[in-house]
Amino acid sequence: MDEMAGHTANSSSALEKLRQLLQQDDIQPDLALPTERELAERFAVGRREIRRALNVLEEEGRIWRKQGKGTFVGPAAPVQPLQLQDLPQQSNLLEVMEARIQLEPGLARLAALRASKEQIALMQRLLERMHNITLNDSDQHELWDSAFHRAIAEAAGNRLMLSLFDAIDAVRREPAWQHLRVQARTPARLENYDHHHVRLVQHIAARQPVEAAQAMREHLLALQQALLEAINVGDEELP
Amino acid sequence: MDEMAGHTANSSSALEKLRQLLQQDDIQPDLALPTERELAERFAVGRREIRRALNVLEEEGRIWRKQGKGTFVGPAAPVQPLQLQDLPQQSNLLEVMEARIQLEPGLARLAALRASKEQIALMQRLLERMHNITLNDSDQHELWDSAFHRAIAEAAGNRLMLSLFDAIDAVRREPAWQHLRVQARTPARLENYDHHHVRLVQHIAARQPVEAAQAMREHLLALQQALLEAINVGDEELP
Repeated sequence: MDEMAGHTANSSSALEKLRQLLQQDDIQPDLALPTERELAERFAVGRREIRRALNVLEEEGRIWRKQGKGTFVGPAAPVQPLQLQDLPQQSNLLEVMEARIQLEPGLARLAALRASKEQIALMQRLLERMHNITLNDSDQHELWDSAFHRAIAEAAGNRLMLSLFDAIDAVRREPAWQHLRVQARTPARLENYDHHHVRLVQHIAARQPVEAAQAMREHLLALQQALLEAINVGDEELP
Repeated sequence: MDEMAGHTANSSSALEKLRQLLQQDDIQPDLALPTERELAERFAVGRREIRRALNVLEEEGRIWRKQGKGTFVGPAAPVQPLQLQDLPQQSNLLEVMEARIQLEPGLARLAALRASKEQIALMQRLLERMHNITLNDSDQHELWDSAFHRAIAEAAGNRLMLSLFDAIDAVRREPAWQHLRVQARTPARLENYDHHHVRLVQHIAARQPVEAAQAMREHLLALQQALLEAINVGDEELP
Protein backbone atom coordinates (compact mmCIF):
# COMPACT_ATOMS: atom_id res chain seq x y z
CA MET A 1 0.00 0.00 0.00
CA ASP A 2 1.40 3.40 -0.85
CA GLU A 3 1.96 6.06 1.77
CA MET A 4 -1.03 8.10 0.74
CA ALA A 5 -3.40 5.18 1.09
CA GLY A 6 -1.82 4.31 4.43
CA HIS A 7 -2.43 7.85 5.59
CA THR A 8 -6.02 8.25 4.50
CA ALA A 9 -7.37 4.82 5.33
CA ASN A 10 -8.17 4.57 9.02
CA SER A 11 -10.39 2.09 10.82
CA SER A 12 -13.25 4.60 10.92
CA SER A 13 -13.40 4.86 7.16
CA ALA A 14 -13.13 1.06 6.92
CA LEU A 15 -16.12 0.87 9.27
CA GLU A 16 -18.07 3.34 7.15
CA LYS A 17 -17.45 1.23 4.05
CA LEU A 18 -18.42 -1.98 5.81
CA ARG A 19 -21.63 -0.36 7.07
CA GLN A 20 -22.48 0.58 3.49
CA LEU A 21 -21.74 -2.97 2.37
CA LEU A 22 -24.09 -4.37 5.03
CA GLN A 23 -26.85 -2.00 3.90
CA GLN A 24 -26.87 -3.29 0.34
CA ASP A 25 -30.04 -4.97 -0.85
CA ASP A 26 -28.49 -8.34 -1.56
CA ILE A 27 -27.01 -8.71 1.92
CA GLN A 28 -28.99 -11.26 3.94
CA PRO A 29 -28.51 -12.63 7.47
CA ASP A 30 -26.09 -15.57 7.68
CA LEU A 31 -24.43 -14.70 4.39
CA ALA A 32 -20.65 -15.19 4.55
CA LEU A 33 -18.66 -11.99 4.12
CA PRO A 34 -15.50 -11.89 2.03
CA THR A 35 -12.28 -12.60 3.95
CA GLU A 36 -10.43 -9.81 5.75
CA ARG A 37 -7.81 -9.85 3.02
CA GLU A 38 -10.42 -9.48 0.28
CA LEU A 39 -12.20 -6.70 2.15
CA ALA A 40 -8.89 -4.90 2.70
CA GLU A 41 -8.18 -5.07 -1.01
CA ARG A 42 -11.65 -4.06 -2.08
CA PHE A 43 -11.70 -0.98 0.16
CA ALA A 44 -7.98 -0.19 -0.22
CA VAL A 45 -7.36 -0.15 3.51
CA GLY A 46 -5.05 -2.21 5.73
CA ARG A 47 -6.05 -5.59 7.17
CA ARG A 48 -5.61 -4.19 10.68
CA GLU A 49 -8.17 -1.47 9.94
CA ILE A 50 -10.60 -4.04 8.53
CA ARG A 51 -10.15 -6.26 11.59
CA ARG A 52 -10.74 -3.34 13.95
CA ALA A 53 -13.85 -2.23 12.08
CA LEU A 54 -15.17 -5.81 12.13
CA ASN A 55 -14.70 -5.82 15.93
CA VAL A 56 -17.11 -2.89 16.17
CA LEU A 57 -19.67 -4.55 13.92
CA GLU A 58 -19.37 -7.75 15.95
CA GLU A 59 -19.98 -5.81 19.18
CA GLU A 60 -23.02 -4.22 17.58
CA GLY A 61 -24.35 -7.62 16.58
CA ARG A 62 -24.32 -6.78 12.87
CA ILE A 63 -21.91 -9.62 12.11
CA TRP A 64 -20.74 -12.75 13.85
CA ARG A 65 -17.56 -14.72 13.52
CA LYS A 66 -17.08 -18.44 13.70
CA GLN A 67 -13.58 -19.69 14.41
CA GLY A 68 -12.07 -21.16 11.28
CA LYS A 69 -15.26 -20.57 9.28
CA GLY A 70 -15.21 -16.84 8.64
CA THR A 71 -17.43 -13.83 9.19
CA PHE A 72 -21.20 -13.86 8.72
CA VAL A 73 -23.89 -11.25 8.40
CA GLY A 74 -26.04 -10.80 11.51
CA PRO A 75 -29.60 -9.52 11.77
CA ALA A 76 -30.34 -6.21 10.05
CA ALA A 77 -29.93 -3.03 12.05
CA PRO A 78 -33.20 -1.92 13.67
CA VAL A 79 -32.77 1.56 12.19
CA GLN A 80 -31.27 2.10 8.76
CA PRO A 81 -30.10 5.55 7.70
CA LEU A 82 -31.75 7.02 4.63
CA GLN A 83 -29.90 7.92 1.45
CA LEU A 84 -29.69 11.69 1.61
CA GLN A 85 -29.91 12.06 -2.16
CA ASP A 86 -33.24 10.30 -2.13
CA LEU A 87 -34.87 11.51 1.09
CA PRO A 88 -38.24 12.63 -0.28
CA GLN A 89 -38.93 9.10 -1.50
CA GLN A 90 -37.93 7.48 1.76
CA SER A 91 -38.87 9.66 4.67
CA ASN A 92 -42.25 10.85 5.93
CA LEU A 93 -43.88 13.92 7.37
CA LEU A 94 -43.82 12.85 11.02
CA GLU A 95 -40.14 12.00 10.84
CA VAL A 96 -39.53 15.40 9.25
CA MET A 97 -41.42 17.24 11.96
CA GLU A 98 -39.40 15.48 14.63
CA ALA A 99 -36.12 16.24 12.88
CA ARG A 100 -37.12 19.90 12.43
CA ILE A 101 -37.88 20.17 16.17
CA GLN A 102 -34.36 18.96 16.89
CA LEU A 103 -32.57 21.01 14.24
CA GLU A 104 -34.31 24.35 13.79
CA PRO A 105 -34.22 25.69 17.36
CA GLY A 106 -30.44 25.42 17.12
CA LEU A 107 -30.52 27.29 13.81
CA ALA A 108 -32.61 30.06 15.42
CA ARG A 109 -30.11 30.20 18.31
CA LEU A 110 -27.18 30.64 15.92
CA ALA A 111 -29.14 33.10 13.77
CA ALA A 112 -29.66 35.30 16.85
CA LEU A 113 -25.88 35.39 17.21
CA ARG A 114 -24.90 35.70 13.56
CA ALA A 115 -27.67 37.21 11.41
CA SER A 116 -26.55 40.35 9.62
CA LYS A 117 -28.85 43.37 9.56
CA GLU A 118 -29.53 42.55 5.94
CA GLN A 119 -30.57 39.02 6.83
CA ILE A 120 -32.86 40.28 9.59
CA ALA A 121 -34.41 42.76 7.14
CA LEU A 122 -35.06 39.86 4.77
CA MET A 123 -36.83 37.91 7.51
CA GLN A 124 -39.04 40.93 8.14
CA ARG A 125 -39.87 41.32 4.45
CA LEU A 126 -40.74 37.63 4.21
CA LEU A 127 -43.04 38.03 7.23
CA GLU A 128 -44.88 40.82 5.46
CA ARG A 129 -45.29 38.76 2.33
CA MET A 130 -46.80 35.97 4.39
CA HIS A 131 -49.40 38.34 5.86
CA ASN A 132 -50.93 38.92 2.47
CA ILE A 133 -51.54 35.35 1.36
CA THR A 134 -55.12 34.13 1.20
CA LEU A 135 -55.92 31.05 3.25
CA ASN A 136 -56.75 28.86 0.28
CA ASP A 137 -53.54 29.41 -1.61
CA SER A 138 -51.59 26.59 -0.02
CA ASP A 139 -48.94 26.74 -2.74
CA GLN A 140 -48.07 30.31 -1.69
CA HIS A 141 -48.11 29.37 2.01
CA GLU A 142 -45.67 26.53 1.46
CA LEU A 143 -43.45 28.71 -0.70
CA TRP A 144 -43.06 31.72 1.59
CA ASP A 145 -43.07 29.77 4.81
CA SER A 146 -40.25 27.58 3.51
CA ALA A 147 -38.33 30.69 2.37
CA PHE A 148 -38.79 32.24 5.82
CA HIS A 149 -37.45 29.21 7.66
CA ARG A 150 -34.61 28.94 5.18
CA ALA A 151 -33.66 32.58 5.76
CA ILE A 152 -33.15 31.72 9.43
CA ALA A 153 -31.15 28.61 8.53
CA GLU A 154 -28.95 30.68 6.23
CA ALA A 155 -28.46 33.40 8.85
CA ALA A 156 -27.20 30.71 11.25
CA GLY A 157 -24.02 30.77 9.18
CA ASN A 158 -23.17 27.06 9.25
CA ARG A 159 -23.10 25.62 5.71
CA LEU A 160 -23.24 22.06 7.00
CA MET A 161 -26.43 22.75 8.92
CA LEU A 162 -27.91 24.67 5.99
CA SER A 163 -27.41 21.62 3.79
CA LEU A 164 -29.11 19.46 6.45
CA PHE A 165 -31.99 21.95 6.53
CA ASP A 166 -32.33 21.76 2.75
CA ALA A 167 -32.34 17.97 2.85
CA ILE A 168 -35.15 17.97 5.41
CA ASP A 169 -37.09 20.71 3.64
CA ALA A 170 -37.09 18.69 0.43
CA VAL A 171 -39.19 16.03 2.19
CA ARG A 172 -41.58 18.64 3.52
CA ARG A 173 -42.12 19.94 -0.01
CA GLU A 174 -42.98 16.51 -1.36
CA PRO A 175 -46.41 16.88 -3.04
CA ALA A 176 -47.73 13.60 -1.64
CA TRP A 177 -47.75 15.11 1.87
CA GLN A 178 -49.38 18.37 0.88
CA HIS A 179 -52.99 17.34 1.51
CA LEU A 180 -52.20 16.60 5.15
CA ARG A 181 -50.45 19.93 5.51
CA VAL A 182 -53.44 21.66 3.92
CA GLN A 183 -55.85 19.88 6.29
CA ALA A 184 -53.84 21.05 9.28
CA ARG A 185 -53.98 24.67 8.15
CA THR A 186 -56.84 26.71 9.68
CA PRO A 187 -57.26 30.50 9.96
CA ALA A 188 -56.80 30.36 13.74
CA ARG A 189 -53.64 28.31 13.43
CA LEU A 190 -52.22 30.53 10.69
CA GLU A 191 -52.73 33.55 12.90
CA ASN A 192 -50.99 31.72 15.71
CA TYR A 193 -48.04 30.81 13.48
CA ASP A 194 -47.84 34.41 12.37
CA HIS A 195 -47.39 35.48 16.01
CA HIS A 196 -44.68 32.83 16.41
CA HIS A 197 -42.85 34.07 13.33
CA VAL A 198 -42.99 37.68 14.47
CA ARG A 199 -41.71 36.79 17.93
CA LEU A 200 -38.95 34.66 16.39
CA VAL A 201 -37.66 37.56 14.31
CA GLN A 202 -37.89 39.91 17.29
CA HIS A 203 -35.68 37.61 19.37
CA ILE A 204 -33.21 37.18 16.52
CA ALA A 205 -33.06 40.95 15.97
CA ALA A 206 -32.65 41.51 19.73
CA ARG A 207 -29.77 38.98 19.78
CA GLN A 208 -31.54 36.69 22.24
CA PRO A 209 -30.34 33.19 21.32
CA VAL A 210 -32.09 31.27 24.10
CA GLU A 211 -35.41 33.00 23.48
CA ALA A 212 -35.12 32.59 19.72
CA ALA A 213 -34.49 28.84 20.11
CA GLN A 214 -37.41 28.56 22.50
CA ALA A 215 -39.74 30.48 20.15
CA MET A 216 -38.76 28.19 17.29
CA ARG A 217 -39.32 25.09 19.40
CA GLU A 218 -42.79 26.26 20.44
CA HIS A 219 -43.66 27.08 16.84
CA LEU A 220 -42.62 23.67 15.56
CA LEU A 221 -44.33 21.84 18.42
CA ALA A 222 -47.54 23.69 17.50
CA LEU A 223 -47.10 22.63 13.86
CA GLN A 224 -46.53 19.03 14.91
CA GLN A 225 -49.59 19.12 17.15
CA ALA A 226 -51.75 20.52 14.32
CA LEU A 227 -50.51 17.78 12.02
CA LEU A 228 -51.30 15.04 14.53
CA GLU A 229 -54.78 16.48 15.04
CA ALA A 230 -55.37 16.60 11.28
CA ILE A 231 -54.41 12.93 11.10
CA ASN A 232 -56.78 11.96 13.92
CA VAL A 233 -59.71 13.96 12.58
CA GLY A 234 -59.27 11.99 9.37
CA ASP A 235 -59.57 8.74 11.32
CA GLU A 236 -62.84 9.71 12.95
CA GLU A 237 -64.57 11.08 9.88
CA LEU A 238 -63.80 8.35 7.40
CA PRO A 239 -66.33 5.50 7.35
CA MET B 1 -49.11 19.94 -19.07
CA ASP B 2 -50.62 16.65 -17.96
CA GLU B 3 -52.47 16.24 -14.71
CA MET B 4 -49.65 14.42 -12.98
CA ALA B 5 -47.15 17.17 -13.71
CA GLY B 6 -49.68 19.76 -12.62
CA HIS B 7 -50.10 17.90 -9.36
CA THR B 8 -46.47 17.33 -8.50
CA ALA B 9 -44.92 20.61 -9.65
CA ASN B 10 -45.59 23.25 -7.03
CA SER B 11 -43.90 26.60 -6.55
CA SER B 12 -41.73 25.19 -3.77
CA SER B 13 -40.16 22.63 -6.05
CA ALA B 14 -39.73 25.30 -8.74
CA LEU B 15 -37.91 27.39 -6.11
CA GLU B 16 -35.69 24.47 -5.18
CA LYS B 17 -34.70 23.99 -8.82
CA LEU B 18 -34.05 27.69 -9.31
CA ARG B 19 -31.86 27.74 -6.20
CA GLN B 20 -29.84 24.88 -7.63
CA LEU B 21 -29.53 26.75 -10.92
CA LEU B 22 -28.22 29.85 -9.13
CA GLN B 23 -25.63 27.76 -7.29
CA GLN B 24 -24.02 26.49 -10.47
CA ASP B 25 -20.43 27.49 -11.07
CA ASP B 26 -21.04 29.36 -14.29
CA ILE B 27 -23.72 31.62 -12.79
CA GLN B 28 -22.32 35.13 -12.30
CA PRO B 29 -23.96 38.32 -11.01
CA ASP B 30 -25.79 40.32 -13.70
CA LEU B 31 -26.13 37.34 -15.99
CA ALA B 32 -29.53 37.25 -17.69
CA LEU B 33 -31.65 34.25 -16.72
CA PRO B 34 -33.72 32.36 -19.30
CA THR B 35 -37.28 33.63 -19.72
CA GLU B 36 -40.09 32.40 -17.49
CA ARG B 37 -41.37 30.31 -20.37
CA GLU B 38 -37.99 28.68 -20.93
CA LEU B 39 -37.54 28.02 -17.21
CA ALA B 40 -41.02 26.51 -17.00
CA GLU B 41 -40.19 24.18 -19.86
CA ARG B 42 -36.76 23.25 -18.56
CA PHE B 43 -38.07 22.34 -15.09
CA ALA B 44 -41.40 20.96 -16.32
CA VAL B 45 -43.45 23.20 -14.04
CA GLY B 46 -46.11 25.82 -14.78
CA ARG B 47 -45.26 29.44 -15.58
CA ARG B 48 -47.24 30.54 -12.55
CA GLU B 49 -45.05 28.39 -10.30
CA ILE B 50 -41.90 29.81 -11.91
CA ARG B 51 -43.17 33.37 -11.45
CA ARG B 52 -44.01 32.74 -7.81
CA ALA B 53 -40.62 31.18 -7.11
CA LEU B 54 -38.90 34.12 -8.84
CA ASN B 55 -40.82 36.45 -6.50
CA VAL B 56 -39.17 34.76 -3.53
CA LEU B 57 -35.71 34.98 -5.08
CA GLU B 58 -36.29 38.64 -5.88
CA GLU B 59 -37.31 39.31 -2.27
CA GLU B 60 -34.16 37.53 -1.12
CA GLY B 61 -32.06 39.69 -3.43
CA ARG B 62 -30.77 36.67 -5.37
CA ILE B 63 -32.22 37.99 -8.62
CA TRP B 64 -33.50 41.32 -9.91
CA ARG B 65 -35.97 42.11 -12.65
CA LYS B 66 -35.90 44.99 -15.06
CA GLN B 67 -39.15 45.88 -16.76
CA GLY B 68 -39.07 44.76 -20.38
CA LYS B 69 -35.47 43.52 -20.07
CA GLY B 70 -35.84 40.28 -18.15
CA THR B 71 -34.49 38.67 -14.99
CA PHE B 72 -30.88 38.95 -13.86
CA VAL B 73 -28.71 37.17 -11.35
CA GLY B 74 -28.06 39.14 -8.16
CA PRO B 75 -25.11 38.85 -5.76
CA ALA B 76 -24.25 35.37 -4.51
CA ALA B 77 -25.91 34.15 -1.32
CA PRO B 78 -23.74 34.85 1.76
CA VAL B 79 -24.05 31.22 2.83
CA GLN B 80 -24.14 28.41 0.32
CA PRO B 81 -25.30 24.97 1.37
CA LEU B 82 -22.81 22.14 0.94
CA GLN B 83 -23.36 19.17 -1.32
CA LEU B 84 -24.20 16.38 1.09
CA GLN B 85 -22.57 13.74 -1.08
CA ASP B 86 -19.28 15.58 -0.85
CA LEU B 87 -19.29 16.97 2.69
CA PRO B 88 -15.87 15.76 3.84
CA GLN B 89 -14.21 17.77 1.06
CA GLN B 90 -16.15 20.93 1.78
CA SER B 91 -16.79 21.26 5.49
CA ASN B 92 -14.40 21.70 8.39
CA LEU B 93 -13.94 20.53 11.96
CA LEU B 94 -15.29 23.67 13.67
CA GLU B 95 -18.42 23.63 11.55
CA VAL B 96 -18.86 19.96 12.42
CA MET B 97 -18.49 20.59 16.15
CA GLU B 98 -21.11 23.30 15.98
CA ALA B 99 -23.50 21.10 14.02
CA ARG B 100 -22.97 18.22 16.46
CA ILE B 101 -23.80 20.50 19.40
CA GLN B 102 -27.10 21.34 17.71
CA LEU B 103 -27.99 17.84 16.56
CA GLU B 104 -26.73 15.29 19.08
CA PRO B 105 -28.43 16.54 22.27
CA GLY B 106 -31.72 16.01 20.43
CA LEU B 107 -30.63 12.52 19.49
CA ALA B 108 -29.80 11.77 23.13
CA ARG B 109 -33.21 13.12 24.15
CA LEU B 110 -35.00 10.83 21.69
CA ALA B 111 -32.76 7.90 22.62
CA ALA B 112 -33.84 8.27 26.26
CA LEU B 113 -37.42 7.86 25.05
CA ARG B 114 -36.91 5.15 22.47
CA ALA B 115 -33.79 3.07 23.11
CA SER B 116 -34.58 -0.62 23.48
CA LYS B 117 -32.92 -2.58 26.29
CA GLU B 118 -30.76 -4.18 23.64
CA GLN B 119 -29.62 -0.79 22.37
CA ILE B 120 -28.81 0.36 25.90
CA ALA B 121 -26.84 -2.84 26.49
CA LEU B 122 -24.88 -2.06 23.31
CA MET B 123 -24.04 1.45 24.58
CA GLN B 124 -22.76 -0.12 27.80
CA ARG B 125 -20.61 -2.65 25.94
CA LEU B 126 -19.17 0.11 23.75
CA LEU B 127 -18.32 2.09 26.91
CA GLU B 128 -16.39 -0.87 28.26
CA ARG B 129 -14.47 -1.27 25.02
CA MET B 130 -13.50 2.42 25.20
CA HIS B 131 -12.07 1.94 28.71
CA ASN B 132 -9.45 -0.43 27.44
CA ILE B 133 -7.91 1.65 24.66
CA THR B 134 -4.41 3.00 25.20
CA LEU B 135 -4.02 6.77 24.89
CA ASN B 136 -1.76 6.65 21.86
CA ASP B 137 -4.02 4.54 19.70
CA SER B 138 -5.99 7.40 18.18
CA ASP B 139 -7.34 5.14 15.44
CA GLN B 140 -9.08 3.00 18.06
CA HIS B 141 -10.34 6.07 19.92
CA GLU B 142 -11.93 7.50 16.80
CA LEU B 143 -13.41 4.15 15.88
CA TRP B 144 -15.13 3.26 19.16
CA ASP B 145 -16.10 6.79 20.05
CA SER B 146 -17.79 7.19 16.70
CA ALA B 147 -19.57 3.82 17.15
CA PHE B 148 -20.75 4.92 20.62
CA HIS B 149 -22.23 8.18 19.38
CA ARG B 150 -23.78 6.38 16.43
CA ALA B 151 -25.42 3.85 18.78
CA ILE B 152 -27.20 6.77 20.45
CA ALA B 153 -28.18 8.24 17.07
CA GLU B 154 -29.59 4.88 16.03
CA ALA B 155 -31.49 4.43 19.29
CA ALA B 156 -33.15 7.81 18.66
CA GLY B 157 -35.24 5.94 16.07
CA ASN B 158 -35.45 8.66 13.41
CA ARG B 159 -33.90 7.49 10.12
CA LEU B 160 -33.74 11.01 8.75
CA MET B 161 -31.73 12.20 11.73
CA LEU B 162 -29.53 9.10 11.59
CA SER B 163 -28.64 9.93 8.01
CA LEU B 164 -27.81 13.51 9.06
CA PHE B 165 -25.63 12.12 11.84
CA ASP B 166 -23.80 9.90 9.35
CA ALA B 167 -23.26 12.83 6.99
CA ILE B 168 -21.71 14.88 9.80
CA ASP B 169 -19.68 11.98 11.13
CA ALA B 170 -18.11 11.48 7.72
CA VAL B 171 -16.51 14.92 8.02
CA ARG B 172 -15.25 14.18 11.50
CA ARG B 173 -13.57 11.02 10.21
CA GLU B 174 -11.73 12.89 7.46
CA PRO B 175 -8.03 12.03 7.95
CA ALA B 176 -6.86 15.60 7.30
CA TRP B 177 -8.45 16.70 10.60
CA GLN B 178 -7.08 13.84 12.67
CA HIS B 179 -3.90 15.56 13.84
CA LEU B 180 -5.95 18.33 15.49
CA ARG B 181 -8.19 15.78 17.16
CA VAL B 182 -5.12 13.90 18.39
CA GLN B 183 -3.59 17.11 19.78
CA ALA B 184 -6.77 17.85 21.69
CA ARG B 185 -6.74 14.40 23.33
CA THR B 186 -5.07 14.26 26.76
CA PRO B 187 -5.37 11.64 29.54
CA ALA B 188 -7.26 14.09 31.77
CA ARG B 189 -9.69 14.96 28.99
CA LEU B 190 -10.25 11.34 28.04
CA GLU B 191 -11.10 10.53 31.65
CA ASN B 192 -13.52 13.46 31.65
CA TYR B 193 -15.17 12.28 28.41
CA ASP B 194 -15.46 8.83 29.91
CA HIS B 195 -17.46 10.27 32.82
CA HIS B 196 -19.67 12.12 30.33
CA HIS B 197 -20.30 8.95 28.36
CA VAL B 198 -21.17 6.95 31.46
CA ARG B 199 -23.57 9.65 32.68
CA LEU B 200 -25.14 9.86 29.24
CA VAL B 201 -25.93 6.15 29.18
CA GLN B 202 -27.24 6.30 32.75
CA HIS B 203 -29.72 9.02 31.77
CA ILE B 204 -30.78 7.17 28.65
CA ALA B 205 -31.26 3.96 30.63
CA ALA B 206 -33.20 5.87 33.32
CA ARG B 207 -35.45 7.38 30.60
CA GLN B 208 -34.47 10.95 31.46
CA PRO B 209 -34.66 12.81 28.13
CA VAL B 210 -33.87 16.30 29.46
CA GLU B 211 -30.88 15.12 31.45
CA ALA B 212 -29.60 12.97 28.57
CA ALA B 213 -29.75 15.95 26.21
CA GLN B 214 -28.00 18.13 28.76
CA ALA B 215 -25.25 15.54 29.35
CA MET B 216 -24.67 15.29 25.60
CA ARG B 217 -24.52 19.06 25.26
CA GLU B 218 -21.96 19.36 28.05
CA HIS B 219 -19.89 16.58 26.55
CA LEU B 220 -19.81 18.18 23.11
CA LEU B 221 -19.10 21.64 24.52
CA ALA B 222 -16.12 20.14 26.36
CA LEU B 223 -14.91 18.56 23.10
CA GLN B 224 -15.30 21.86 21.27
CA GLN B 225 -13.41 23.68 24.01
CA ALA B 226 -10.57 21.16 23.88
CA LEU B 227 -10.36 21.57 20.13
CA LEU B 228 -10.21 25.36 20.35
CA GLU B 229 -7.49 25.11 23.00
CA ALA B 230 -5.50 22.72 20.81
CA ILE B 231 -5.72 25.23 17.97
CA ASN B 232 -4.56 28.12 20.16
CA VAL B 233 -1.69 26.20 21.71
CA GLY B 234 -0.52 25.56 18.18
CA ASP B 235 -0.54 29.30 17.50
CA GLU B 236 1.60 30.10 20.50
CA GLU B 237 4.18 27.41 20.02
CA LEU B 238 4.88 27.79 16.32
CA PRO B 239 7.60 30.30 15.49
